[in-house]
Amino acid sequence: MNPNVEIFSQGEEVITGQIADTNAAWLSSQLVMMGFKVSRHTAVGDNMDDLIVLLKEIAIRTDCCFCTGGLGPTTDDLTREAVAHAFDAPLVFDEIALKNIQDFFQTRGKAMASINRQQAFFPQGATRIDNPWGTAPAFSFNYQQCLFIFLPGVPFEMRNLFNEQIKANLLQYFSLNPQPLTIIKTFGIGESELQVCLNNLNLPSSVSIGFRATANENQVKLLFSNDILAADKTLLINQIVNALGDYVFAIDDLENTVGGLVEVVSAQLEKNQQTLAVIETLTQGLFAAKVIGHSWLLSSSFHATIESLEQQWQLQTTTDLSTTAKILAEKLQQHSHADFVLVQLYQRNINIVSNKNQPFLLYNTLQTPHGIYQSIQTLNGSLERKQNQAAMLGLDLLRRYLQQKKL
Amino acid sequence: MNPNVEIFSQGEEVITGQIADTNAAWLSSQLVMMGFKVSRHTAVGDNMDDLIVLLKEIAIRTDCCFCTGGLGPTTDDLTREAVAHAFDAPLVFDEIALKNIQDFFQTRGKAMASINRQQAFFPQGATRIDNPWGTAPAFSFNYQQCLFIFLPGVPFEMRNLFNEQIKANLLQYFSLNPQPLTIIKTFGIGESELQVCLNNLNLPSSVSIGFRATANENQVKLLFSNDILAADKTLLINQIVNALGDYVFAIDDLENTVGGLVEVVSAQLEKNQQTLAVIETLTQGLFAAKVIGHSWLLSSSFHATIESLEQQWQLQTTTDLSTTAKILAEKLQQHSHADFVLVQLYQRNINIVSNKNQPFLLYNTLQTPHGIYQSIQTLNGSLERKQNQAAMLGLDLLRRYLQQKKL
Repeated sequence: MNPNVEIFSQGEEVITGQIADTNAAWLSSQLVMMGFKVSRHTAVGDNMDDLIVLLKEIAIRTDCCFCTGGLGPTTDDLTREAVAHAFDAPLVFDEIALKNIQDFFQTRGKAMASINRQQAFFPQGATRIDNPWGTAPAFSFNYQQCLFIFLPGVPFEMRNLFNEQIKANLLQYFSLNPQPLTIIKTFGIGESELQVCLNNLNLPSSVSIGFRATANENQVKLLFSNDILAADKTLLINQIVNALGDYVFAIDDLENTVGGLVEVVSAQLEKNQQTLAVIETLTQGLFAAKVIGHSWLLSSSFHATIESLEQQWQLQTTTDLSTTAKILAEKLQQHSHADFVLVQLYQRNINIVSNKNQPFLLYNTLQTPHGIYQSIQTLNGSLERKQNQAAMLGLDLLRRYLQQKKL
Repeated sequence: MNPNVEIFSQGEEVITGQIADTNAAWLSSQLVMMGFKVSRHTAVGDNMDDLIVLLKEIAIRTDCCFCTGGLGPTTDDLTREAVAHAFDAPLVFDEIALKNIQDFFQTRGKAMASINRQQAFFPQGATRIDNPWGTAPAFSFNYQQCLFIFLPGVPFEMRNLFNEQIKANLLQYFSLNPQPLTIIKTFGIGESELQVCLNNLNLPSSVSIGFRATANENQVKLLFSNDILAADKTLLINQIVNALGDYVFAIDDLENTVGGLVEVVSAQLEKNQQTLAVIETLTQGLFAAKVIGHSWLLSSSFHATIESLEQQWQLQTTTDLSTTAKILAEKLQQHSHADFVLVQLYQRNINIVSNKNQPFLLYNTLQTPHGIYQSIQTLNGSLERKQNQAAMLGLDLLRRYLQQKKL
């Protein structure tokens, strides 16, 4: 029987709808993969009575509860006090916590404001969870059979705390029996097309299939029954991967996650010690920005107009985009000595590009050690969506070449 | 006294974290602006017992509840039945609803599947709300003092139903009196520092203050009592803005939202018909990517090493970053004829830059029509965080010049 978990979010920005509660979604997906049953999400504002009532409610109906938000230093951060009231656990000062907070400011060359001191108080009996990513220490607290874990609401602090400080302890504390999960990651194929590809295979009841569409990849999630044999599982995965073809760029499972297109491309380029230079147009720097932290990108440049781009590279004006792209790619290759050169061009017309109902064509050109490859893609959606699509399409063109897939 | 409203979301995709509950966020922001007090968000999966328990809970503690999801034709769409059980209101067939659903398919050249018939059943006493945007009719239901409104989970159907069919009726049904809200947007000052600035002013009870920290701005939210005089409100806002000083870059209220740093800077540059060119280092294209859609950015370039940057601009190597930056800025200005040039440099050492516990110095150089301004900033956090901080700091340097604030 999988343990039951609830997510409890605190904050005016959530309750008043300034932000969607992505913390609840992220925590839920992590906990489901670990084998928890997520039964309820609840969010309330910065209101002491609401917090106390809810903490008491939750404590008697679930095995575990993740609470986010309300750990900051300001007057509207009430979580510590609410726990103290709800469970009769007066706040106790924690010397080490204060030291950590002071150090956090010191290493950043700042003095700690006195109001941060209250972040070093915890309900009696709580266990402090150090937070190297921010000023607010997290903590856990047991009330009867329920384990509460209180995390800051800042997403990157919350995620790091979960991954680095909490996940391992949960696996010890609860007996979890997650179903084997395999995630097949694809790019360039829509959710419904994925479904169609799989309809033809008639899959056994030992696997249930889910889909997840994101801006940067479309996933096929395979959840296997606990008693499935490793050999049968492998067979099924291969069968499905073959059905999806060259759209598949990575396969993740609980033990081993490869990451997204950026990580897959980077791993290959770093292994080959190969480099890339890029001329950005529609992406306007987003391609380079996405691959920060990887040394294989030698240079990226953006010019607002085709004229200034042509001037930069002493180009004779040519109306034919794919020819222009080829010439640019060769010039940039000679200039940068990169192993690969990516050039994306399109007919500049900001009215078309910014019109979310107006699809338009992007000309991708990839110069490789074995010649030039070109592809034409149709982009649609808002300008920001087209910008992101273009960056991901550039990465995918490179990925397909590196994985020796159809370009 | 503002009426109290809760948001209740149903669906496995929400509870398992496949999607963030953007419906709850969108509805909340609409309702807050109308003058409701949103007290709680709750989400559960497709489970009949959970639904019945929650509907009963909610009915006795709130004036109004918006429920999304569970109105589809499939076996996991349980909302209609749950309401019938919870409030003893047997399902009744609605001829007009069926006609509408049949018409919906017909106008799309499709035949209605028999399973869609169940969407024409409503709990006894419910009021049907026609849905021209999809197959699932919405409905409202009164239980004692609580008005329930049940909407489909598909966001665009839900939003259209709210805007076109429901909003007007709510204004009739409830006496709403929204509180004036003012949001003061700052950059470069932390949440706790903001609070310290305001501690010295002793503010009247006619204004309540909240804070919201994001990666791109820190907000001070002023919620005024309904009976406050316009003059007093203006006085208070000015008092607070003065206390916060040059960190303030914009002031929003319900009538008028200025947007973020990108929008504020863009509005000013477009008004002046001025342009910018930028050399990106740590930002690695993110500065340019953030301002997509605005024509004032002429060019952006990134080189992975200081050597290739120097080679690109025929620079004699110089160890002094601020001198190098000045020379680069002048060269780029002459080359691009931009009104402004932004150059950010730092001591390249990827180990320091990527180390989240290692703060380091960023040298910002802004060439303007009235000379060169330089500032040195300390960045910290993860590499992606430093990258974003650097982009925002570049924008803020420009903003401070344009708003004639201290650079």
